[in-house]
Amino acid sequence: MRSEGLTIEGRNSVLEAFRSGKTVDKLFVLDGCQDGPVRTILREAKRQGSFVSFVKKQRLDQMSDTGKHQGVIAYIAAYEYSTIEDMLKTAKEKNEPPFLILLDGIEDPYNLGSIIRTANQAGVHGIIIPKKHATGLTATVVKASAGAIHYTPVAKVTNIVQTIEYLKGQGLWFVCGDMKGEIMYNLDLTGPIGLVIGGEGSGASRFVKENCDFIASIPMFGDINSLNVAVATGILSYEIVRQRQEWIYGR
Amino acid sequence: MRSEGLTIEGRNSVLEAFRSGKTVDKLFVLDGCQDGPVRTILREAKRQGSFVSFVKKQRLDQMSDTGKHQGVIAYIAAYEYSTIEDMLKTAKEKNEPPFLILLDGIEDPYNLGSIIRTANQAGVHGIIIPKKHATGLTATVVKASAGAIHYTPVAKVTNIVQTIEYLKGQGLWFVCGDMKGEIMYNLDLTGPIGLVIGGEGSGASRFVKENCDFIASIPMFGDINSLNVAVATGILSYEIVRQRQEWIYGR
Repeated sequence: MRSEGLTIEGRNSVLEAFRSGKTVDKLFVLDGCQDGPVRTILREAKRQGSFVSFVKKQRLDQMSDTGKHQGVIAYIAAYEYSTIEDMLKTAKEKNEPPFLILLDGIEDPYNLGSIIRTANQAGVHGIIIPKKHATGLTATVVKASAGAIHYTPVAKVTNIVQTIEYLKGQGLWFVCGDMKGEIMYNLDLTGPIGLVIGGEGSGASRFVKENCDFIASIPMFGDINSLNVAVATGILSYEIVRQRQEWIYGR
Repeated sequence: MRSEGLTIEGRNSVLEAFRSGKTVDKLFVLDGCQDGPVRTILREAKRQGSFVSFVKKQRLDQMSDTGKHQGVIAYIAAYEYSTIEDMLKTAKEKNEPPFLILLDGIEDPYNLGSIIRTANQAGVHGIIIPKKHATGLTATVVKASAGAIHYTPVAKVTNIVQTIEYLKGQGLWFVCGDMKGEIMYNLDLTGPIGLVIGGEGSGASRFVKENCDFIASIPMFGDINSLNVAVATGILSYEIVRQRQEWIYGR
């Protein structure tokens, strides 16, 4: 699962990265560039679902380490992504009901790293993040995870709602963390579960929320209107841990 | 409680800051400087318990905005500190058993800010931090607290153990978060309580731990050996919230 984060520059190098199966998180292409090799690279990027950004020459020059980007720069994931199938397989092997976390648009790499760290301790089998409008597994994420990224798999999906539908078919229930939900202590959060957490700004999208079975809220007695998203994920995850422990072992 | 964070330079300005009752978090003095005015400033610093650091001229020059530091620079707290008496009074007025958090050496201002934010939401009546070897209420803390610093008071004390002793006399029980404690779900965390959390590096000091009534641990199923301290504080705080709710309202 390990592989260092990398910036790759130049047409041949970037194309080679795609063809060797590396995960390209972001591709930067010179705006207006339309020749054959660039079109081939864009086709590969589309197939892999990489995030593509068309930028001015000045921006590419700034990003370039070698000064020889030839109009294309690719950011390779710091760690290789896993698959949902592998996560479900791990849960089965451990004889535990699956416990997954789905992040609907976390943008701060420090928060993502902290969530991976917490998920590892809470016994979560895997984390699912969207391909677009979210941070990938960058070097900052790796550092903030305090090593947990070596153990807790992360999968990247095109569509969170379709993923929820698929996992419901595999027997999972979905609970979305949201301020307007039922107090978490009053919900039954045992069994195979997917915990959905929205992004820092506006939380989970309406469509994602509508596809969840429950909406759970953390009781708040304060004067401000939110918690840090990594802290909130920790609190919700451990309410699931508590209920699982009671459910499995009694108390 | 509001008052902006400030760097004050020059002998008269720094002395004036002390005499007007401002909270000087840190005082930097030119190494070897021993004349009358500087000795007066050092006496004030000792009385207030400010953290004093003797540094070289080059360092002071770098820190100086005005270029006229005259051998002394003071960091004023971004917010005014509160007192433990005020925290207990607030709890009494709200007719709630006191719930305080004592931080034994948090060094990262981002973590302190995040803990203040969580504490506000969890209904904590105040946070207590030590004068030495810990971050004060800097601008980064204020920002990371997302506004919670306006509502949740923070007090600074010389000695955490003595503070615990004093608060025990006021009827509080103390629980320290530590990996080697009893699983938090199995402890009775209701009633007037002080939650003690150690610093990022080595946790709470042995002497502080020995003075607590309980040691509580978060169950960890992971491959790494810790949680982020702000996340851990959130999880422990909300276990206290859960038990309080059951205790006060039934379930």
